[in-house]
Amino acid sequence: MKTPKEIVDIMMNGDAFSRWLDISIDQLKEGHCTLSCTVRAEMLNGHHIAHGGISYSLSDSALAFAANSHGNKCVSIETSISHLSPVREGDRLTAVCNEIHRGKTFAIYNVDIFNQNEEKISAFKGTVNISREIW
Amino acid sequence: MKTPKEIVDIMMNGDAFSRWLDISIDQLKEGHCTLSCTVRAEMLNGHHIAHGGISYSLSDSALAFAANSHGNKCVSIETSISHLSPVREGDRLTAVCNEIHRGKTFAIYNVDIFNQNEEKISAFKGTVNISREIW
Amino acid sequence: MKTPKEIVDIMMNGDAFSRWLDISIDQLKEGHCTLSCTVRAEMLNGHHIAHGGISYSLSDSALAFAANSHGNKCVSIETSISHLSPVREGDRLTAVCNEIHRGKTFAIYNVDIFNQNEEKISAFKGTVNISREIW
Amino acid sequence: MKTPKEIVDIMMNGDAFSRWLDISIDQLKEGHCTLSCTVRAEMLNGHHIAHGGISYSLSDSALAFAANSHGNKCVSIETSISHLSPVREGDRLTAVCNEIHRGKTFAIYNVDIFNQNEEKISAFKGTVNISREIW
Repeated sequence: MKTPKEIVDIMMNGDAFSRWLDISIDQLKEGHCTLSCTVRAEMLNGHHIAHGGISYSLSDSALAFAANSHGNKCVSIETSISHLSPVREGDRLTAVCNEIHRGKTFAIYNVDIFNQNEEKISAFKGTVNISREIW
Repeated sequence: MKTPKEIVDIMMNGDAFSRWLDISIDQLKEGHCTLSCTVRAEMLNGHHIAHGGISYSLSDSALAFAANSHGNKCVSIETSISHLSPVREGDRLTAVCNEIHRGKTFAIYNVDIFNQNEEKISAFKGTVNISREIW
Repeated sequence: MKTPKEIVDIMMNGDAFSRWLDISIDQLKEGHCTLSCTVRAEMLNGHHIAHGGISYSLSDSALAFAANSHGNKCVSIETSISHLSPVREGDRLTAVCNEIHRGKTFAIYNVDIFNQNEEKISAFKGTVNISREIW
Repeated sequence: MKTPKEIVDIMMNGDAFSRWLDISIDQLKEGHCTLSCTVRAEMLNGHHIAHGGISYSLSDSALAFAANSHGNKCVSIETSISHLSPVREGDRLTAVCNEIHRGKTFAIYNVDIFNQNEEKISAFKGTVNISREIW
């Protein structure tokens, strides 16, 4: 059985988009992780704030790492995100992912993202399907 | 009053991330748009399929263009997406955004994404806040 | 293998709350159903409109009947509803449930509710887990 | 300006469906409340567990009381609920509602429901529109 770190290293290695986001993994244990990244000019939208897809993508990576770290391959089936405050170029975003339910076939996670001033900028909830395939 | 095309041109012009996604605007009218883009290697995740953030981001851009095309500035407040089928490198994604409700202070849109084989790969719903500020 | 009607008859028979709502089944086939009910005084909230739980409950029953009608027992895992217009005492609500995805382990349904004037009053999306247990 | 208790007394007084659910208000302050109720036979569905509409309705009442307690009238626009564990006849449900964001035009709340064994049975998130009308 691989450790959470071994599993996430494999995932991160193949995860070109998380690398484009320049995500760093700050904490990791079964069912939990903390990730961070910095908002660059190429991540902004037509309102000159971060595109909603940036905080979603950071949240979705956090969901994937936390959910898969138990050992079984998990795929996201339904996710939602509330955008709470605008995110600007240069902001440092920290995503904290916690498991709120882990059953046999599906599991649910919350991901809150905070900026460098500890303001919560988004609230994400994701449901994954737990397959029988092992990492 | 600006036309939908004038508004979306301004938005797209400032929208560095939609340009990174290489989004093309195939159809546009008030409350509706169709966008498309092609999945590149740098958009893949650790399962070697498109990162969930790619279909979310394409959906969120479609939401923004459709919602803002009426003339008032709109900001997304709550969005959800179901990922239905895996998306692979080279897939051509087409996002179809329709307005399902437009009130005074908020509006709701569905965005379905299809691949080049007309399989639906994701179903997105987004709620925006309608501000009084005009484009 | 039981027919959709046989399955839903068993479900409805044991479903005391759907009977309290006085739900009638107007149409039923695999993956689809149309239900209706009338809003009574005891279904109103502190704004003197129907409690949000009424349109949710009607939608959730529609989800259950449509999802289970294929033969395998399904349980709802994640649902969302947007309330679009106020519902008043005496309104006749019609819920139309359509399958938007059916995979091996989970399936997704939309339920739109209309009032007697054909105004859409709510938009619901539900994800169910498909068990191996047969009705 | 009315107190949270005065506002919720007015709401509860007109809220026939919350009274049908036999909801008791255990705690209440601005942006927060704790409610409870007991599952009766008439609240069960075709699986002989509580209908999903029961935990949704209890959550939605908690959302309404917490959101309106600040003084401005608020109406729910988008809500989601994950059903985590089956609820049985006789279970005592306690709903804990917390404010996770309060802006000028909309606010967001989480409602977790626990049974008498302190198991979390559902996780709800709701977004309300804050009107200018005062209670």
